Amino acid sequence: MPNSQNKKCRIAVDAMGGDFAPANTVVGAIDASAADNNIQLLLVGDKDKIKKVLADKNLQFPDEQIVHANEVIDMSDSPTAALKSKPNSSIVVGAKLVKDGKADGFISAGNTGAMMAASTLIIGRIKGVSRPTIGSSFPTQNGDYCSVYDVGASVDSKPSHLYEYALMGSIYAKEMHNIPKPTIGIMSVGEEKSKGNELTFATHELLSNSELNYVGNVEGRDVLKGTVNIIVCDGFVGNIILKLAESTIGLLKSRIKKYAEKGIINKLKALVVKGVFKEALSDMDYQSYGGVPLLGVNGISIIGHGSSSELAIKNMVLKAKEMFDKQLLQKFEEALKDYAKSK
Amino acid sequence: MPNSQNKKCRIAVDAMGGDFAPANTVVGAIDASAADNNIQLLLVGDKDKIKKVLADKNLQFPDEQIVHANEVIDMSDSPTAALKSKPNSSIVVGAKLVKDGKADGFISAGNTGAMMAASTLIIGRIKGVSRPTIGSSFPTQNGDYCSVYDVGASVDSKPSHLYEYALMGSIYAKEMHNIPKPTIGIMSVGEEKSKGNELTFATHELLSNSELNYVGNVEGRDVLKGTVNIIVCDGFVGNIILKLAESTIGLLKSRIKKYAEKGIINKLKALVVKGVFKEALSDMDYQSYGGVPLLGVNGISIIGHGSSSELAIKNMVLKAKEMFDKQLLQKFEEALKDYAKSK
Repeated sequence: MPNSQNKKCRIAVDAMGGDFAPANTVVGAIDASAADNNIQLLLVGDKDKIKKVLADKNLQFPDEQIVHANEVIDMSDSPTAALKSKPNSSIVVGAKLVKDGKADGFISAGNTGAMMAASTLIIGRIKGVSRPTIGSSFPTQNGDYCSVYDVGASVDSKPSHLYEYALMGSIYAKEMHNIPKPTIGIMSVGEEKSKGNELTFATHELLSNSELNYVGNVEGRDVLKGTVNIIVCDGFVGNIILKLAESTIGLLKSRIKKYAEKGIINKLKALVVKGVFKEALSDMDYQSYGGVPLLGVNGISIIGHGSSSELAIKNMVLKAKEMFDKQLLQKFEEALKDYAKSK
Repeated sequence: MPNSQNKKCRIAVDAMGGDFAPANTVVGAIDASAADNNIQLLLVGDKDKIKKVLADKNLQFPDEQIVHANEVIDMSDSPTAALKSKPNSSIVVGAKLVKDGKADGFISAGNTGAMMAASTLIIGRIKGVSRPTIGSSFPTQNGDYCSVYDVGASVDSKPSHLYEYALMGSIYAKEMHNIPKPTIGIMSVGEEKSKGNELTFATHELLSNSELNYVGNVEGRDVLKGTVNIIVCDGFVGNIILKLAESTIGLLKSRIKKYAEKGIINKLKALVVKGVFKEALSDMDYQSYGGVPLLGVNGISIIGHGSSSELAIKNMVLKAKEMFDKQLLQKFEEALKDYAKSK
């Protein structure tokens, strides 16, 4: 891992979050810290359970880096209510570590809504950010990076929010994906600027008059084509885009399964298809990704799928470290300061 | 074809609309009328060009059923402006045939926006309909019928519009797809009724208090899962859903192509994949479908892809005939009358 800062980064990991916790979280997090010795890990959760995993897996981990939290916010808990009813939950305790300056970042594969609420309400926003945002990268035809903001942190985004998404998304793409001048599009129903709704028209005005590399409207088909690097839209729309795209692989698998049931020849052909899929379409299996950062929060916050594997947890910790090394939060704040001045 | 009414249905076909017109339109339309002798065809377009196709293909067609129109609205023309600037275009002339009671329906694979505008502005709306709507059926995992309304006729749908979409969509699913009580969902960002935006909350109230088989919110993943038969949403959202879903096959094809380029074994495997796709995923190739009806217009109006084949045109004509036989327009008007009374 690059470590331009050569500085310790303290990363808190929700040991209890996700379907396979705490085994996958403990092992994945320790794997990450073994890969980069500037990571100082804090494991947040039930101390006894964490120690049992450490013993079972024969792993060494300093006792003082285990932060006890005796409650767990379940997947079925109501996010904001749970923050109050479960103050000793791993998500609340982890977010407080960041808030109190005891950790630089927090990652969790637990209840997504609770993680968003804890990050926004406990850690708080970067100065100048009205709405934190979650982006999601999509597999593209041309192989180019394409990330959609927002995919679910908000459902009634205003033009200024979309502007902030474009700004933070650009910095993220530049720093984390080495794209010098990321192209930006507004999700709409036609390429012409006359096509769209009130939100797209007003956002068009804001982005046209900015320094950002805004190229115009894009359509639903442009996500998987990879026409632009950053697509901004209301979180309601982005969430639907994400869940629809994620569900494609399920349709494919069920169709191939049905095809295979029609006889031995079909079964053999389906085996070939599965092998090709595994190689050619691996990035359509969104579940295997690492987590996605919640941008705009005044601390690094990364949210993973409930089904995160050890590797996904490891990647989330390493991503947090990379965001720390590249000083993304400082860069967001700086850019938003310039935007505020220009208004 | 069933023909319960045993009554002539006069269907006007835009002979000039689409990438392969007039050859595909003339042949496809005549194929349809050969399959059902209660279809009385009107071919609308450049008379000389239509006659040339008839001669080339050695087809007999009564001269008086060719309605001359010497202009064509191109794919690049601005829809509403073109209605005025090209009053002798095949789309305007065809829509007027319905308006004037000289045809029961009109189909076109030409400029979609112009066809929508002509249908709405020239033919007009059914009494009680605020907004005509276009639905699109999607391939589903479970094989069940799932159609999303609206996919692009409107971009700022109100709750009452979504109610009308649900009502007309239900009647369409019942009559045309033999689903006795179609299930209806509202597209949102979570299944709980607390998840969504102002539009979904207000639509929830309307649908909850209706006779329709409303089951609650659905999410982006439910389209391809086939969780419900009818999904209602703002046309802005539906258009993005449609274009994103349509683009999936392009991503798959490009990935398989890249895979095939890596060597002879890969090439052979890719051939197997292509064959399986053709059989198992044919309904993901949206282009090959027939057209989609614009519901709520006071006449049958069916809009096809620009790339419609002869078969697609034939299917569009037969679909118009089926809608006529099943008296869909009368059923829409009746249902909306009851809705107006209940308010």
